[in-house]
Parts: sequence; C-alpha cells; structure tokens
Amino acid sequence: MATGHLTIDLGALVQNWRTLDAMTACETAAVVKANGYGLGATRVADALAQAGARQFFVATAEEGAVLRRSLGPEPFIGIFSGHMEGDTPLLRDNDLTPMLNSVDQVLRHVESLPGRACGVQLDTGMNRLGLEPQDWSALREIVVGLGPTLVMSHLACADESDHQMNLQQLQTFREMTEGLSAPRSLAATGGLLLGRYFHFDLTRPGVGLYGGMPYEDALQTVHLTLPVIQTRVVEPGETVGYSNTWTAPVPSRIATVSAGYADGILRAAGNGLTLFSGGVPCPVRGRISMDLITVDITALPEDPPHLSLLGGGNTVDTLADAAGTIGYEILTSLGARYERTYTA
Amino acid sequence: MATGHLTIDLGALVQNWRTLDAMTACETAAVVKANGYGLGATRVADALAQAGARQFFVATAEEGAVLRRSLGPEPFIGIFSGHMEGDTPLLRDNDLTPMLNSVDQVLRHVESLPGRACGVQLDTGMNRLGLEPQDWSALREIVVGLGPTLVMSHLACADESDHQMNLQQLQTFREMTEGLSAPRSLAATGGLLLGRYFHFDLTRPGVGLYGGMPYEDALQTVHLTLPVIQTRVVEPGETVGYSNTWTAPVPSRIATVSAGYADGILRAAGNGLTLFSGGVPCPVRGRISMDLITVDITALPEDPPHLSLLGGGNTVDTLADAAGTIGYEILTSLGARYERTYTA
Repeated sequence: MATGHLTIDLGALVQNWRTLDAMTACETAAVVKANGYGLGATRVADALAQAGARQFFVATAEEGAVLRRSLGPEPFIGIFSGHMEGDTPLLRDNDLTPMLNSVDQVLRHVESLPGRACGVQLDTGMNRLGLEPQDWSALREIVVGLGPTLVMSHLACADESDHQMNLQQLQTFREMTEGLSAPRSLAATGGLLLGRYFHFDLTRPGVGLYGGMPYEDALQTVHLTLPVIQTRVVEPGETVGYSNTWTAPVPSRIATVSAGYADGILRAAGNGLTLFSGGVPCPVRGRISMDLITVDITALPEDPPHLSLLGGGNTVDTLADAAGTIGYEILTSLGARYERTYTA
Repeated sequence: MATGHLTIDLGALVQNWRTLDAMTACETAAVVKANGYGLGATRVADALAQAGARQFFVATAEEGAVLRRSLGPEPFIGIFSGHMEGDTPLLRDNDLTPMLNSVDQVLRHVESLPGRACGVQLDTGMNRLGLEPQDWSALREIVVGLGPTLVMSHLACADESDHQMNLQQLQTFREMTEGLSAPRSLAATGGLLLGRYFHFDLTRPGVGLYGGMPYEDALQTVHLTLPVIQTRVVEPGETVGYSNTWTAPVPSRIATVSAGYADGILRAAGNGLTLFSGGVPCPVRGRISMDLITVDITALPEDPPHLSLLGGGNTVDTLADAAGTIGYEILTSLGARYERTYTA
C-alpha cells in the first residue's frame, strides 16, 4: 500500500489537557474546531470528555452538530462564529451555545431563540471577532438580561509572552467586563501560559492539547510514516523532481515516498524539510509534488520500507519552520488519504 | 451558517477535457488522483466518463478502489505508485492496472498477479518514479512478455515550454521505447501543450482539466464564496489579527469571513490575497487565521453577506501567486468544511 500512516496518541492529548488544567485554578475547556485541529474532532473530544473535560468549542454550528452527536447531551459546546443567518435550527436542535459577536447576532438570537443559552464575544483589540466596545456599551443591559453562559475575548499576541498587546487586551477585557456576574474567559493556550491574571473562570486551550507551540512542554500527539515506493542512485549532475531544482553534487541514493502536498505536506517546505529513519536525518531533495516526495537516504545503511515525517525527529513545529508557517497549519493540513490509528 | 460554499462546474471540467482531447490525434485519459485534485474524484470521473473518457489515473490503489466502485467495470484505472507491498488484493479485486516502477514491483506483480494487466513507468530523467534505464534494459524482455497495457514516463519541466529538459526526456523516452508495440504515454497537461511529438498514444491531463496553468485557456471549474460573520470600522493606528501585522492607515471597514488555513486557504497568502464582491477587490488585512480571514471592504457601498475567493476575480493561479505556490496546491487544498454544489 502507498498510504501514509498517521498514528494519533490520544493518551498524550489527554495528558496535555490535564497538565494545562493543573496550571490553573479555573475550568479548562478544549477547542476542537477544524476537525480537532486535523486529528478528528469526535475522537479527540470523546477522549477529553472521558478525562473530565466538560466544555468544548468549535468554529461553526455545523461542527457543533457533529460533535453533539458524538458527545451526547451533557457537555457544553460553544460556537465561536456565533449565531449566523441559517444557524437557528442547528443551534436549537443540538443545544449549541453561540458566542454572539455583533449587534446583528444578538438581535437574531433574541428573536429566533428567546430564552436559549448564549455567550458573548467581546473585541478587546484584535478586530476580528466580537462586539466593539461602543456596541457592547449599547447592548450590555440586553445581553446581561439574556443570562450569558460566558463572556469571552481572544488575544492577538498571546504566543509572544512579552508583547505589550497582551496587557493592553487584558486591561480592556477587565474594563469591559467589570461588575458582570457571568463567567469570563480570555485565554487560549498562549494566554493560559501567561499566568493567572489571564485565566479568569475558563481557559480554552487548543494547539497546546495537540502538541504545538507556544506550549513548549507539550507531548507530541501525531506520528506520521510514509511508505517508500522505490529507491535509486543518482549520479553527480543528475537532477531530481519538478523543474530540476536539485542537482546531485555527489552520488546520492534517493527514495521516493508516497505523500505530497495533496496530503497537506506544504509545498513551501521544499528543500528545507527533513525526514527520518531510526533517528537518521534524510533531507528532501527537489520539489514536493502532489503525491510524492524525493528524499536523500544516502546516510542509511539500507533502503528503508518507510520514512518518518512526524514523531521520529520532527515535531509539528520543526515541520512548520521548514514550511515557513506555524504548527497549527501543519496540524490542520494533515491529509485525508492517510490511514489513521488512534492509541489510548 | 458559517460555511463557505464551493461550486464545482462539471460542465467546465468536461469542456476542458474535450478541448484538450481535440488538440491531439491520440487518446486522452484523465488524471483524478488526490480526490480529483480536490474536486471529488468520483464526481469528476463520472462526468468525464459520460463525456467519453475511458482511461483514468490515480496515485494509489486505495484511490483506485474508490473510483472503481463509482465508475463500474469498464474504464481503465491506472495506478501511478505501481504495485506496492500489500496492494495485491486491491489491484485484483478492483481490476486496477499498476504502472510498475521498479525491479521489486515487476517481480512482485509477476509473482502475485501472474497474467493480470500492468503498465510500466520509465524514468527519463526526473528521478522520481519509474525504472532506470539500466534496470529497464535488464527487465525489458520480461516486461514485454507481460504484454503491458501502457509504457509511460513523466516530464519534469513540461510547465516551462522552452526548457531543454523536455527535449532531453523526449529523446530518452523514444530511445527507451523504440521497437515496442505497447501503447506509449509521456505527456500530462504541460506535455500535451508542447505539441504532437509529445503525444504518443495517450495523454494524461490533470491540472488542465481543473482550470489551472499551464493550460492558459482552461475554463475555471471552482467558485468559492465565504460568508461574512461581522463587519467593523477600525480607526487609524488600530491593528487587525494575530501579531498585529496590519495597522489601519486610514479609517477602514473590515469584514471577518468564515474560512481560514484549516480550509486550505494557505496561511502563506497573508496580505497578498484579495477577495472580491461584485468585481470589486477587497484585500486581506492581517494574518489568515485557522477559521477566519479579515478583509478590507472599505471600497464597497454596503456590507456584503459573503465575499468571493475563487471565481469572482481570482483564479486558482492568482490565488497560488498570492501564496507563492502553484494552482495545483490551491486545488488539492480545498477544504472539507465547505458546502459543495456540483453544476453540470
């Protein structure tokens, strides 16, 4: 078979959640949007629910409906995109709690789902989601009257622990929520790591659960091996791959492995990427193609049946560095063609 | 609903296949690997089969098995990765034809599926897939004895029509296949456009079917609109998105749309990306996040319910340019969260 094998370590995931939970005195939710950061939202959420997580967040009502079917009626499921036009039946039928982001969304919720749970998202400076301060001032009475389950905001620069923006947003959030009795939440993984002033009543870790920075001590949750289709020796002066971007400087043994950018191995990684075999680094040569990668295995004593792309020397963040991106994108890009195994 | 809407124009796809087919005097296959370049392999293949395509190619036996269930018993389905260990039952049960790439694969096929159809892939210089000239010399008699359905190779630089490598690979392919009676194939989309010397008995267009370069006259096959969650005015000096990478120079109206790199909108595109509303360009401001993009809609007369990312001003290739990649990767990255509609 020419299918890569992705092993997802739910035990490591649960341990990451527990460790992050133990860093705070407040509740710890789990963000499982984008199909659980690529790992499978229902598998991830089921494992975390068994470990004690009671609050989950996704991006859209459609994601929430899938999660509700898997988690059963008890856990809280919050929707970051709030109450969009057309969402009403999904929110109602699946007991989802929208984080209302705008005047339009507040009015829509009041009119279409009176008495049903909601939260509210405030913009404290990121200018992406949430009520602006002036809209919040105008609507605060109405929203408080709805008995919001949560009042939340999101940090723009939490992955940079000394960024002035964090304190600025913290201050704005405190001012905007002063005197409220509703539970408050400001921190995702990065914010959680910034310390107790950022914790409030609930943290919402996402990437830290899955083993990505900025949570340096996270356990890796994904291991990916790719089968070798064939190997060959290329002589000095021979080129490898599309557009002849790599020329062999010395006789080199090249393995062609079965995976490519169609599997979420970002083409931008190109020559900066290294695979591993038993800890020995094997650098990519030439361009990543749609379904194939050519790798220099000259350093290996014999031809390997497969090479490791994640877990055998790479983390999601070393892979991200090679592609000029962040670990989050490596995770959410994990391909649909891989055979997936979950370990407890 | 906060789900992007992807419309796939199967009529345009079929027209692209017909136009490419009319450019040659030989047979025209269709490459539908990587889930039909992201568009849905079975929908794409069914439409092309109805239009007259009789030969299809995928990357792996697993992809071939899915395709066989949809296409029924008649069409040819070729497997570029050849006959991998563990593939035998899939190849046999689904009548798939492996393109054998190595000595190991030839021996495996002869031993495990004697008398069953195969093709052979030759390496003519790309050093990625296929038998090396010296292995081919040693095995040629044996392979000819198998009565191969196809003898093929692949061009490394076909997207650059004046690249010397194309003529060099053409010459090598002619030399390696001289005197053979089996059908021969060298060209994918790029090679097809290089002219009749490259056509042989079968062309294998992929990206050209889906509307990507190097086929300049291709009809676009994908249209993608993203819902606006909310809009806000940001004042000069305010920042937008993660890490404050964009600061408003003038009062600006910002729309937050529901889609991000988890939907395959490559994070690398960042500030180089433009969405459209009724033909009016609306540039992305700040970083692309996992599920959200912030877009400058100051130029619009009123807040739009959605913005267009593909088909309303962008092609897969303008999107690729913004992300520093190629249209192929834009297509294969099209996200799983989009609602998909197929038009005939």
